[in-house]
Amino acid sequence: MRASQYFISTLKEAPADAEVVSQKLMLRAGFIRKVAAGIYSYLPIGLRVIRKVEEIVREEMNRAGALELTMPMVQPSELWAETGRWEKMGEEMLRFKDRHERDFALQPTSEEVVTDIARQELKSYRQLPKNFYQIQTKFRDERRPRFGVMRGREFTMKDAYSFDRNMDAAGRSYDAMYAAYCRIFDRLGLTYRAVAADTGAIGGDRSHEFQVIADTGEDAIVYCPDSDYAANIELAEALSLLASRAAPTHGLEKTPTPGAATCADVAKLLGLPLATTVKSLVLATDDVDDKGQPAGVTVWLLLVRGDHALNEVKASKVEGLKAGFRFATEAEIHEHFGCKPGYLGPIGMKKPVKVVADRTVANMSDFICGANDEDYHYTGANWGRDLPEPDLVADLRNVVEGDPSPDGKGRLAIQRGIEVGHVFYLGTKYSKAMNATFLDEDGKPKHFEMGCYGIGVTRILGAAIEQNNDARGIIWPDALAPFRIVVCPVGWGKSEAVRSEALKLYEGLLAAGVDAILDDRDERPGVMFADWELIGVPHRVVIGERGLKEGMAEYQGRRDAEATKVAIGDLAGFVAAKLRGQ
Amino acid sequence: MRASQYFISTLKEAPADAEVVSQKLMLRAGFIRKVAAGIYSYLPIGLRVIRKVEEIVREEMNRAGALELTMPMVQPSELWAETGRWEKMGEEMLRFKDRHERDFALQPTSEEVVTDIARQELKSYRQLPKNFYQIQTKFRDERRPRFGVMRGREFTMKDAYSFDRNMDAAGRSYDAMYAAYCRIFDRLGLTYRAVAADTGAIGGDRSHEFQVIADTGEDAIVYCPDSDYAANIELAEALSLLASRAAPTHGLEKTPTPGAATCADVAKLLGLPLATTVKSLVLATDDVDDKGQPAGVTVWLLLVRGDHALNEVKASKVEGLKAGFRFATEAEIHEHFGCKPGYLGPIGMKKPVKVVADRTVANMSDFICGANDEDYHYTGANWGRDLPEPDLVADLRNVVEGDPSPDGKGRLAIQRGIEVGHVFYLGTKYSKAMNATFLDEDGKPKHFEMGCYGIGVTRILGAAIEQNNDARGIIWPDALAPFRIVVCPVGWGKSEAVRSEALKLYEGLLAAGVDAILDDRDERPGVMFADWELIGVPHRVVIGERGLKEGMAEYQGRRDAEATKVAIGDLAGFVAAKLRGQ
Repeated sequence: MRASQYFISTLKEAPADAEVVSQKLMLRAGFIRKVAAGIYSYLPIGLRVIRKVEEIVREEMNRAGALELTMPMVQPSELWAETGRWEKMGEEMLRFKDRHERDFALQPTSEEVVTDIARQELKSYRQLPKNFYQIQTKFRDERRPRFGVMRGREFTMKDAYSFDRNMDAAGRSYDAMYAAYCRIFDRLGLTYRAVAADTGAIGGDRSHEFQVIADTGEDAIVYCPDSDYAANIELAEALSLLASRAAPTHGLEKTPTPGAATCADVAKLLGLPLATTVKSLVLATDDVDDKGQPAGVTVWLLLVRGDHALNEVKASKVEGLKAGFRFATEAEIHEHFGCKPGYLGPIGMKKPVKVVADRTVANMSDFICGANDEDYHYTGANWGRDLPEPDLVADLRNVVEGDPSPDGKGRLAIQRGIEVGHVFYLGTKYSKAMNATFLDEDGKPKHFEMGCYGIGVTRILGAAIEQNNDARGIIWPDALAPFRIVVCPVGWGKSEAVRSEALKLYEGLLAAGVDAILDDRDERPGVMFADWELIGVPHRVVIGERGLKEGMAEYQGRRDAEATKVAIGDLAGFVAAKLRGQ
Repeated sequence: MRASQYFISTLKEAPADAEVVSQKLMLRAGFIRKVAAGIYSYLPIGLRVIRKVEEIVREEMNRAGALELTMPMVQPSELWAETGRWEKMGEEMLRFKDRHERDFALQPTSEEVVTDIARQELKSYRQLPKNFYQIQTKFRDERRPRFGVMRGREFTMKDAYSFDRNMDAAGRSYDAMYAAYCRIFDRLGLTYRAVAADTGAIGGDRSHEFQVIADTGEDAIVYCPDSDYAANIELAEALSLLASRAAPTHGLEKTPTPGAATCADVAKLLGLPLATTVKSLVLATDDVDDKGQPAGVTVWLLLVRGDHALNEVKASKVEGLKAGFRFATEAEIHEHFGCKPGYLGPIGMKKPVKVVADRTVANMSDFICGANDEDYHYTGANWGRDLPEPDLVADLRNVVEGDPSPDGKGRLAIQRGIEVGHVFYLGTKYSKAMNATFLDEDGKPKHFEMGCYGIGVTRILGAAIEQNNDARGIIWPDALAPFRIVVCPVGWGKSEAVRSEALKLYEGLLAAGVDAILDDRDERPGVMFADWELIGVPHRVVIGERGLKEGMAEYQGRRDAEATKVAIGDLAGFVAAKLRGQ
């Protein structure tokens, strides 16, 4: 491609509302333009990157035996009603009526449509396994779209759905997708980690997120440097930090802690370590009787150590909280504790509450907790002596850096990540809801065992940039770069020698099938270099009159601190080696 | 691809609501499945055909220097309001509100968004010309979606938009697109015709439709077999069939024609040729004064020969009717003619009407027309003698087969066509409405001269099938076929020799880059042949045990009446020649 016939539209400054570096750089480099909140046009150079992602995704999905199809953007309510998701999906699913007042939604995902295809088309076990995928526009009406393409409303997603005869076969489909995703992110040249993730209501252990590592990532991912353990922080198991409960050494004492309503304030005030305090969190469940009628409220007191944070996903797995919980209201708290938040604790409540202690808290002794009396805490509290044993002991907290790895092989570390892929075993959730069956070998109808597998195609652009950028702009991995190499002639308009050498290199690259661009805009070197460094082209060759007089050109990789002089005669070979990664 | 690992899902019968042959065959062959009215999923084999169309379109657009980008499906009302189209577009544009109650629409087309990109990005004449295109999902909420992918609601369209400095340059962009479209439809292997089309309010002569010829087409297209004249019937110019007006030979006579309210009935009743009758059509315009206030109604009498049909597009170009017209109400007709429809004519009206005669009617003599008296017509009517000369003479009618070609080079013929592409010169309609300007060489801002260029990607599938099918199914041109050749082994499961020869041919084809499928499903020959003939694969090779004993295989092209025996040793070469079209 010649730059003069292409469309390079860089900006000195990003628009003021751009928040994160990938968004700023994509706007400045002319990859995207905002049309509305969370809705972007992809300019030609941005679309080139999307196509490169799509092509790698498509090749690896096909290699794994998946079959590409296309399901519609606009989907009728009837199918979504069959699984109950027409009601359950929140406002993120954009719904509207057509001219005949029929209900439709823009696809946020396509389980219902693909399950409908399967129940119509896959009649026999002989047709299984099948894995259908599409690379299609999706829409999620985010309440607060932000971070450019990272949390947009309209985006491109690769979504795949596998249909199997039984759980074993579904496991093989899952493993095949997991392996395909590893190949995809390897080929994209991104540093990533596959981490175990929560399976929610489906259960089982088959859910992994593919996280691109970036300091700016929204997700915390937990791993063990000494083993292959890796999990999303929502899931990562926190062991007890205390192997057993020590004997009490202090008596229970009600201590004035005026104005100290947080564990940190109390520890500071009393001059004691934060790790000796216990944090109280009050939840509530709205109970129902056998007939589904409201049957009062149960109040729950969850206890984690003062330096730990409650993990709500883990809380939702506690027996009694699985059906859903909420934070208690101020009135409920007052009714049960006789005190306002900040001074709550498990000793001397006004009315019974269910006490759930984190594994570590359950083994603490001589701990500090709220006294259910404003401006007072207890010190020297001990289980069994000062208060009954907790009703339940559970893993309630987020792991922290340095926690023991659940596999017993070392200590945990934490990184930030950006989720770009997710593989998920669905079981029969959708096939049962939609009565999607096939005839098994024994002649009996069985529900499909399903899996779903997503990759955020447009989000990968943002994640790749968050991971790979510097003060000058984007640094694309070769596989993602809109152009792999730019040839910059200095003095294109006036030097025949420059033009001739630049064209020779450029045409040689094209002939070798390399995605090269020739900057024939006749701009000053500073303008050219700034554009291509902002755009993030990995390799650059500069050919100028001064260098040519000495028989030299210059090569600079996007991450190189400075240029390397290369004899014109060696240039083609030198560049070819660089493009091979040598 | 091996059929056992692919997804072949053919149906014996099309669903009852399928109307046209392409829709029936696409459903039966497993290319599409209906999700809602006018909304389809494309199963893997259908998507393959779409991808083939897209790839040819993309290659030719790129070759013509156009740049691919992507504009969003979901577009904000603000941009559409700038051109007034938020109000003007009918219910075909599906509108809705997002969760924050902001107005959006699904893109039916993208002039507004692309013009917004141009006004932001194209600052200087040095950046021109530019032609941006996308191949993207569109949505039009058709009142009555039908004919499968031919008039669907969700569909894939390639839409391109050119931006130029002036009309000359815009003309060159238009010509480049016209040429690219010819290459595209040539490469797709379709029989088509580029026909001049009406330019509506834009004016000028630069609008062409690309019509795939098919007896089942919705459009009538007019061409001259002896020249390159071709136009949509809406536009095709009708010359006068009478070079001059003959002298009267009959007197005016009021003749009883009881119950004969159509020209055909009158001609039959009187035993005279239909071509001696004149048909009266009554229109009305709602006039406004200088201040835009209603200023009464003008009634118009349009006259075409009894065997001709009024062309409303032509009527809309008559001076006085350009601002819009409607058919007159019964009350208006009665007020002006004193008679009910069926007996109206240009002689003896009650109140003045504007009389517009078609070119042929203006040269008629001794003609028959309504007498403005129920159950009576005049015969022997003559201009000048029995009634005043018409207020206006204009081309008002559709041409008919055998009419003289407007270029004077022969007689016109008429075919049916399916519109699959349209190139259109837009002028400054959108750039002025949105104030999209660039700085020209003289330093002054100028509005872009624009063109737009559409290809209905998914509709091409329907049109190709309407043009190419037989009782057994689809007959794809090679360029569009989901697979170019199928290798059908008879006895795959039991004959090692059959498997070995089939695999040898199949693997050789793959190695040569041919899109081949091996039917290893071990089905009976009848089932295999019926599937592949329905699906429309252009070339088929059958390898069976009986043939192999004689050292022979069979080749059959999809249009061949019978198979050709080919010696196994010659098979690869024979097939290669067939694939080269020899």
